[in-house]
Amino acid sequence: MNLVIIGVIGLDDIETPFGSVKDALGGCAVYSSCAASFFAKAGVSSIAGNDLPSEYRELLLKRDIDTEGIIYEGKNFRWSGSYAYDMNSAETLTTELNSLANFSPILPENYKKARYLMLGNTDPDIQLSVIDQFAHKPFIVIDTMNYWISSKRESLLQVISKSDLVVINEGEARQLFDTPNLIKAGKMLLQMGPKYAIIKKGEHGALLFSDGKFFSAPSYPLETVKDPTGCGDSFAGGLIGYLADVDNTSEESIRRGIIYGSVIASFCAEDFSLNYLEKINREEIEKRYNEFEEIRRF
Amino acid sequence: MNLVIIGVIGLDDIETPFGSVKDALGGCAVYSSCAASFFAKAGVSSIAGNDLPSEYRELLLKRDIDTEGIIYEGKNFRWSGSYAYDMNSAETLTTELNSLANFSPILPENYKKARYLMLGNTDPDIQLSVIDQFAHKPFIVIDTMNYWISSKRESLLQVISKSDLVVINEGEARQLFDTPNLIKAGKMLLQMGPKYAIIKKGEHGALLFSDGKFFSAPSYPLETVKDPTGCGDSFAGGLIGYLADVDNTSEESIRRGIIYGSVIASFCAEDFSLNYLEKINREEIEKRYNEFEEIRRF
Repeated sequence: MNLVIIGVIGLDDIETPFGSVKDALGGCAVYSSCAASFFAKAGVSSIAGNDLPSEYRELLLKRDIDTEGIIYEGKNFRWSGSYAYDMNSAETLTTELNSLANFSPILPENYKKARYLMLGNTDPDIQLSVIDQFAHKPFIVIDTMNYWISSKRESLLQVISKSDLVVINEGEARQLFDTPNLIKAGKMLLQMGPKYAIIKKGEHGALLFSDGKFFSAPSYPLETVKDPTGCGDSFAGGLIGYLADVDNTSEESIRRGIIYGSVIASFCAEDFSLNYLEKINREEIEKRYNEFEEIRRF
Repeated sequence: MNLVIIGVIGLDDIETPFGSVKDALGGCAVYSSCAASFFAKAGVSSIAGNDLPSEYRELLLKRDIDTEGIIYEGKNFRWSGSYAYDMNSAETLTTELNSLANFSPILPENYKKARYLMLGNTDPDIQLSVIDQFAHKPFIVIDTMNYWISSKRESLLQVISKSDLVVINEGEARQLFDTPNLIKAGKMLLQMGPKYAIIKKGEHGALLFSDGKFFSAPSYPLETVKDPTGCGDSFAGGLIGYLADVDNTSEESIRRGIIYGSVIASFCAEDFSLNYLEKINREEIEKRYNEFEEIRRF
């Protein structure tokens, strides 16, 4: 096993103009590891509640995810959110931390040798503690959110400086550097240390920044977005899963990984929770990847 | 001369976080014809005021634009607008129609045989009257704005149904079809008759829809956008100028035309009014076009 993913396992209540779900499986660790599982086996480090339905545990095992690093304790983290007409961003209705408040990851021994580490959106101090448990420095991908940018800025900047690839969304990029210009923000991210920076723009695709190079990835043209929850995490998971599979972190590989991540994210958006990701296979992923070739050709 | 462009000649007062200009040359006919002029000679049909400074008339002639179709009368149309921090959209401060209120284009004889017609953003009834003056149906590109979508919807739908290529921005597309989903909006545009539909997304690039095909064009990564005024018109002008030059309207040509249009729009944004477009040449345009190849390669 060459890939470790840390983050949240959640139980989500979600409402969109296209329907709603209750107690659905969610959380960045779940979306990212399932997305990665189409390319590489991932070990998940997270904390879940004893109330996490057994079919959700089985879903992770069915996707051949290593769950040794998941601790079960108390009640599960819960989030409820609602998307308005334009589906661009969720309004958080309630958040119950529950057992997540005690998350202090201790990696199983076989996790510590992985060459790829995805630090999903969690407390930057927890992200730092995970990096410290690795004997050799892995290739580190980090995601975060607006909450940590404002409440734990110093720790977050430390994590970013120790990472190889930062993946944040456009709102977070603008917030982090107080600039409306994403090109400026991308270049400022690189100045903090990482070799690569990706700014996710949802329906508008993603931008990749690296030393002197720039890549603009389109998004897949979806007529129906049922539920955008987890799309960003699926994107990052698909990307790092692909990198771990090819075991190569050249700029060329990152470009291709971004397209694979975009493919998985597009499937994720087509139904609630992991309903669509459960159904697809590698062949369908390759088919959509090839469609991307046609979408950007000129 | 194989290309006719109709639209507004304006005198603009513009304020952005990067500076301001007064009595600057503007208007969609000016931006589009100057953008087109890098590829093909355009005949402009418009109305201007007797107060239009002579250096502005000379600027058009210097760019080898045919100005026979420009009528001079009374005071010139004036617009003043201001862009806030995020530079996404202008707040219109004042609009003075002046002589534009009497715009009733009568095309010079040599205009009527052109095979390419750009109907810049004006009253849809005026756009219709121009189409009727052509002996043979040209390849028609039409742009419009939110004002006409709400105030002259029926006439606008008629123009769209007679056109070959609609170019509108994302806000207008959403407004026209009352949907947040741009892929749906693009397909609905095609159902109205045109062979091609383009949705402009500013910093996020542009989408091209045609029968069963889809193209997503990136935008050029600009760190400094000084003034976005006229970028949409420069985009459309560069596109139709390229099409008129190669005299081909295949989907492949439209894709390449979109990239040329994006190149010209990116130069336009780098300074106020036409200040930057006045300075560039075809070589610089080709250089930036080649950069686009690198930006979207994977």
